[in-house]
Amino acid sequence: MLSRLSPKNYAVVGCRFGSTIASSEPTGPEMHTAVPGPKSKELTDRMSPLHNTASIRCFVDFEKSFGNYMISSLPLGYNHPDLVKAAASPKFLTSLVSRPALGSFPRTDFSEGLQEALTDVAPKGLKQVQTMLCGTSANENAIKQAFIWHMRQKRGDKPPDQLALDSCMKQQQPGTPHLSVLGFDGAFHGRSLCNLSVTRSKAIPKVDIPAFDWPIAKFPRYKYPLEKYKSYNDQQDKDCLADVEAKILEWNAKKHDVAALIVEPIQAEGGDFYGSPAFFQGLRDITKKHNIVFIVDEVQTGGGATGTGDMWAHSHWNLSTPPDMVTFSKKMLTGGYFYADHLRINESYRIYNTWVGDPTKLFLLQEVVKVIKRDGLLQKNIEVGKEFQKQLHQLQNSHPNKLSNARGLATFAAIDFATAEMRDKLLTDATNNGLHCGGCGPQSLRFRPSLVYEKKHIDLTFEILDKTIKNL
Amino acid sequence: MLSRLSPKNYAVVGCRFGSTIASSEPTGPEMHTAVPGPKSKELTDRMSPLHNTASIRCFVDFEKSFGNYMISSLPLGYNHPDLVKAAASPKFLTSLVSRPALGSFPRTDFSEGLQEALTDVAPKGLKQVQTMLCGTSANENAIKQAFIWHMRQKRGDKPPDQLALDSCMKQQQPGTPHLSVLGFDGAFHGRSLCNLSVTRSKAIPKVDIPAFDWPIAKFPRYKYPLEKYKSYNDQQDKDCLADVEAKILEWNAKKHDVAALIVEPIQAEGGDFYGSPAFFQGLRDITKKHNIVFIVDEVQTGGGATGTGDMWAHSHWNLSTPPDMVTFSKKMLTGGYFYADHLRINESYRIYNTWVGDPTKLFLLQEVVKVIKRDGLLQKNIEVGKEFQKQLHQLQNSHPNKLSNARGLATFAAIDFATAEMRDKLLTDATNNGLHCGGCGPQSLRFRPSLVYEKKHIDLTFEILDKTIKNL
Repeated sequence: MLSRLSPKNYAVVGCRFGSTIASSEPTGPEMHTAVPGPKSKELTDRMSPLHNTASIRCFVDFEKSFGNYMISSLPLGYNHPDLVKAAASPKFLTSLVSRPALGSFPRTDFSEGLQEALTDVAPKGLKQVQTMLCGTSANENAIKQAFIWHMRQKRGDKPPDQLALDSCMKQQQPGTPHLSVLGFDGAFHGRSLCNLSVTRSKAIPKVDIPAFDWPIAKFPRYKYPLEKYKSYNDQQDKDCLADVEAKILEWNAKKHDVAALIVEPIQAEGGDFYGSPAFFQGLRDITKKHNIVFIVDEVQTGGGATGTGDMWAHSHWNLSTPPDMVTFSKKMLTGGYFYADHLRINESYRIYNTWVGDPTKLFLLQEVVKVIKRDGLLQKNIEVGKEFQKQLHQLQNSHPNKLSNARGLATFAAIDFATAEMRDKLLTDATNNGLHCGGCGPQSLRFRPSLVYEKKHIDLTFEILDKTIKNL
Repeated sequence: MLSRLSPKNYAVVGCRFGSTIASSEPTGPEMHTAVPGPKSKELTDRMSPLHNTASIRCFVDFEKSFGNYMISSLPLGYNHPDLVKAAASPKFLTSLVSRPALGSFPRTDFSEGLQEALTDVAPKGLKQVQTMLCGTSANENAIKQAFIWHMRQKRGDKPPDQLALDSCMKQQQPGTPHLSVLGFDGAFHGRSLCNLSVTRSKAIPKVDIPAFDWPIAKFPRYKYPLEKYKSYNDQQDKDCLADVEAKILEWNAKKHDVAALIVEPIQAEGGDFYGSPAFFQGLRDITKKHNIVFIVDEVQTGGGATGTGDMWAHSHWNLSTPPDMVTFSKKMLTGGYFYADHLRINESYRIYNTWVGDPTKLFLLQEVVKVIKRDGLLQKNIEVGKEFQKQLHQLQNSHPNKLSNARGLATFAAIDFATAEMRDKLLTDATNNGLHCGGCGPQSLRFRPSLVYEKKHIDLTFEILDKTIKNL
């Protein structure tokens, strides 16, 4: 894709800012120091007296960054010329300096932005959309909307009555109900107290934080290659679905009704664990049967990198009926969620906050969608994904004692190392060899490239990985 | 302030965008239709099939907006020329299109931005700062940090041990502790499940949403004018402080220790209720005594409009020792919180998320702070605030049967109407007469002008209000 950018775009960028924003890709990585380098260390030391720096891996000169050389949550890599050009327009500048309270005083072009950035790429069967600031607020508000819908059903499809309004101010029933959300072992849905209550990926974000006592069910743990272990894996699906239903009955019996079920298509933060289409169809059936809102958390998987030909990983499942809600953020740039018509709330100020999103992010996504369509990036991701999976499996075959469980959908992928120590050393060494990469779960290496990642980047990626793994 | 803008800035804006972004203030409001007008209705109809529009009051053409004619959360009104100029620079454009994950890969100029935008205007005695995306995430993460500190103290100033790490993955004690936060009747701290648990301003955001069972204490309800009702008001302080201490003992006895107390300097959303400096000093004393983290929520009050000469309303209190945490958002543009040194967490990924804020908002605040300093806007707010209070009380004296409880600090102010219906009619009529204004609590009119609000705007404001109230 990068080689196909028109000279016009380069010219525009070049003319406006001279060499201040990078507009072409270096031929490959060049490392001058280990990471973090002396400059990052100096900046960390300067920042440390005033700000927590414990999680900083290095400082980045973003004006000098281009393309894929820091793989990240961005859909089109760094400083994509079309986006740089768009961002300099009055509509972006005004939205930045005169930020509207979108829920009450939207811009006149907000509706058009919603249509082009979100509705046009909505998951099949879901038309309604709500923007939010980030993945955490997307999930939390989707859950809130599920609670509201659940209680409305209990009232016979009616808005809150005076008893509910009065009792909620004392946090008593029925206004403040005892409801729960079902999550999964290994899941990650964000770091608010609500989302942490359905998160079980790692201890660090959860420890010392109070939580709601909500049900957690088993999520499949397949053996790879999938075909070889078909009966084991099918049994995983059955066991997990049985556990889901058991947990729902248990919490309903405690009068803490399960109002929603939230699940990731791929448990990403937890270690790239996959569920089969049959498993997810099972969840759809169980949630229908028990009148539970089925929320698919596509915060990490959304954005077109899983080879479905659309923006959504859950399109792989071919569900009999769509999920009730699909949440997004990261590669989608704006946070938010799509939802089914029947969940629509018609009272004001219930799903609301000062900003309910950020128009600069929505407009940027609008441009991203234009580029994706113009350059056929979703179709390209399918092709690039095949080559990626081929080389990932070749790498595994070259290092059978160190690597296992190569898995993924297109370029959204992971592979396991024999030990956590080996994985951690790989992350450091590969970065120092010019490949920035990240881990997930206890001993997995994860891949999350952007949509401008293509064959030449795959070759570079696996060349560096092969070299680095040989020296582990 | 508006009249003092240099012609140079106008020229820069004019030259780059022609007439596409407004760069001068109209002489006064001119209304062509009632609000919402036909164009807003048409846009609402277009948006409604796909998006909840229940809270939309009107659509706004922000490119054509300038100055104060829509009073809002923005610190310097709409399209301030200095901000428009800054926003077109490469550092803003890159931050927008190549948004960094600030917690792990900050920009090289992030530390400088933190210093100039936040540390330089920090509340007295608080040096540490953490950025977040919005007020809700600011409050929620401040509360999380208080929980973490509380549990660290319990472990003898130690990070989580293996028992804590293991038990939190099952949501059992000690890793998932039973802790609570004390809030106040009438408070508003945001709409996440955590923040709603300490929110008691109105039923609408709370109803149908499960909550933590956390203590709520009384907040003073003074009679005005304050001097006339001194002994009544002093008794309010004493009763409320006694209630705070009683609630702390009650929850501690239930083994749901109160780890933090969160309070607004002015209960804004709840109806502009004030506490005296003596009340807040009492809270400081009680929280010290019981080793509770004292969080001041300045999401609405922060930003320099309360006549303290700095950015913080709580500076009015002259506390013996500073609060432990001060949260902010809205007029500060970036969300976040300042905190005392002893609350610093040194483990990584505990207070963390993908974005931990947004550099475009931090850089914009950096520019805002420059303008505030250059134009002496904090000092000016004290003077303008005196005139504002004078005219607010004159208005009350002119309409003694309709208005009462005129109150405020500088331009952050409110006044009560005889009934909720009268207040609601005033909001509609004043908007149709060219003064956009908002309500708070059941029957109050609130004022939240920006720092570019000055004498001529006060005259316009009260002229329209007087005329509108006469016809109520």
